[in-house]
Amino acid sequence: MRIAVVGAGAVGLYYGARIQKAGGEVSYLLRSDYEAIGRRGIKIRAQDSNFQLSEVNGFTETKLMGPADLVMVAVKATSNAELPNLLRPIVKEDTAILSLQNGLGNTEFLQRHFPDNPIFGAACYVCLNRVEPGVVENYHLGSVAIAEQGNRRPDLLKRIGELFSGARLKCRLSESIDRMRWEKLLWNAPFNGLSIVGGKLTTDEILANDGLRRLARGLMEELITAAGVLGWEIEYALIDKLFDITRNMGEYAPSSLLDFLEGREIEVEAIWGEPLRQALVAGLDMPKLETLYRLLRIACAPPSD
Amino acid sequence: MRIAVVGAGAVGLYYGARIQKAGGEVSYLLRSDYEAIGRRGIKIRAQDSNFQLSEVNGFTETKLMGPADLVMVAVKATSNAELPNLLRPIVKEDTAILSLQNGLGNTEFLQRHFPDNPIFGAACYVCLNRVEPGVVENYHLGSVAIAEQGNRRPDLLKRIGELFSGARLKCRLSESIDRMRWEKLLWNAPFNGLSIVGGKLTTDEILANDGLRRLARGLMEELITAAGVLGWEIEYALIDKLFDITRNMGEYAPSSLLDFLEGREIEVEAIWGEPLRQALVAGLDMPKLETLYRLLRIACAPPSD
Repeated sequence: MRIAVVGAGAVGLYYGARIQKAGGEVSYLLRSDYEAIGRRGIKIRAQDSNFQLSEVNGFTETKLMGPADLVMVAVKATSNAELPNLLRPIVKEDTAILSLQNGLGNTEFLQRHFPDNPIFGAACYVCLNRVEPGVVENYHLGSVAIAEQGNRRPDLLKRIGELFSGARLKCRLSESIDRMRWEKLLWNAPFNGLSIVGGKLTTDEILANDGLRRLARGLMEELITAAGVLGWEIEYALIDKLFDITRNMGEYAPSSLLDFLEGREIEVEAIWGEPLRQALVAGLDMPKLETLYRLLRIACAPPSD
Repeated sequence: MRIAVVGAGAVGLYYGARIQKAGGEVSYLLRSDYEAIGRRGIKIRAQDSNFQLSEVNGFTETKLMGPADLVMVAVKATSNAELPNLLRPIVKEDTAILSLQNGLGNTEFLQRHFPDNPIFGAACYVCLNRVEPGVVENYHLGSVAIAEQGNRRPDLLKRIGELFSGARLKCRLSESIDRMRWEKLLWNAPFNGLSIVGGKLTTDEILANDGLRRLARGLMEELITAAGVLGWEIEYALIDKLFDITRNMGEYAPSSLLDFLEGREIEVEAIWGEPLRQALVAGLDMPKLETLYRLLRIACAPPSD
């Protein structure tokens, strides 16, 4: 199975390298990191293993990569508009596309542009940071949930799951990509959001502040209500479970906070705007999420905005 | 009528000086500004007049001031705990106490500590900045609304109103101190709050941002709903009126933003915490105000918190 990883941030490199290490045939679309990775390879410092891949099939353009059987999309959702042209050269008739991206709307977007291809989404519960080009640190092993947009190819879903399990990544297959995404939002929306508008806070600082902890819970409750109205039942027990997991993360900087501190784009629409709009269309207000979203829009606006 | 102004910030100096200029017998409790004002007096640069008072009855302790007929309280609500002892030497049996402070709970607090004195509150719709010790700039003349806690002394309310009108200050007497306070909150809560958590914004920047403008409106709607549940009917038309007034203010830095930028204490509980708690006790959620409040709590927390 020829696997193409598009996007060499923490997520793309981490999953690509682990699957390659386990014997997968992986190639990578690289941009600014192309030279550094060509020179030094990919280095992963994970909770369960440290390893370096010196043989890396890196490319600067997708048209040099050749067709893939599985494309793993790991660019920011803010770059989605470029994806159709970027993927065209590596997506053939039966290529599976797996979005590792955060937020809502990514797999639907891919499906619109590649209507005949099987489209999958992964919700990555993992703590990663690309500390320098080609070097990724992993602070919490976590797990991955994978589901298919439209549930038409359970065979392929199973194979993709096996790819991840084979790389010793805890993997769960889900029957509802929507519920899976909203469950992921339950963590991302409060913790990524409050880490920025709370004033550059790590997760332990959010938990230590009584008001922010309550606000995180309130945001989760709004998300569960909205998911329920949209037809995706999420159990309230997940809230306490997520708080337990977060307590175990320790002093963790959510990915959006790292992006914010580095001046990179934040996926404001995918993580906060899209759930808010889906709820509004269904007739439901999400006032806490709305407040957070509007503050994030201005906090994360590029200086020219 | 002997008038004592307690608190020499922008509000205390401005109203004290205007009333003194109009012939009032005013003395001032001064702290860090005592020396500067002793040397240079009080200087007011107002929209309708510029004047300097070189004769200023300034004191560093209330026990040196002698009893007053009217005490005008212009300290921050965050200093309320010190007020009972501070006021004791100047409050006699029939002294009227007028709170010029922002937020909810101030006149109730004064009434608890001075149960037999007539207590008044003023809602000051005015743009002021104390640019240096004893020097106050006024950017928008605005108006003052005054009401009595308990409505027992309409005669005194009228006299206090005349003091303000006599100083050419547009003044309105109100029959409901609660409604008057909530109406003032309708502006203070969104604009003071968003000016801080929106990232140090002036009012024109809040109005220019589509999302923050909607959020300001949403906060106002929550406040009107809460005031209604508590028994104080506020007309929705006030929202558009306040937006019109704010547009006319131009590039205005709300007082809480100035406090924030100068590292001074912010009246988070009086302006955001107290209305939220009053609504919660009445069974009403204010999710946007709650979100704003929790973010302000952490944004405005002293470094040691």
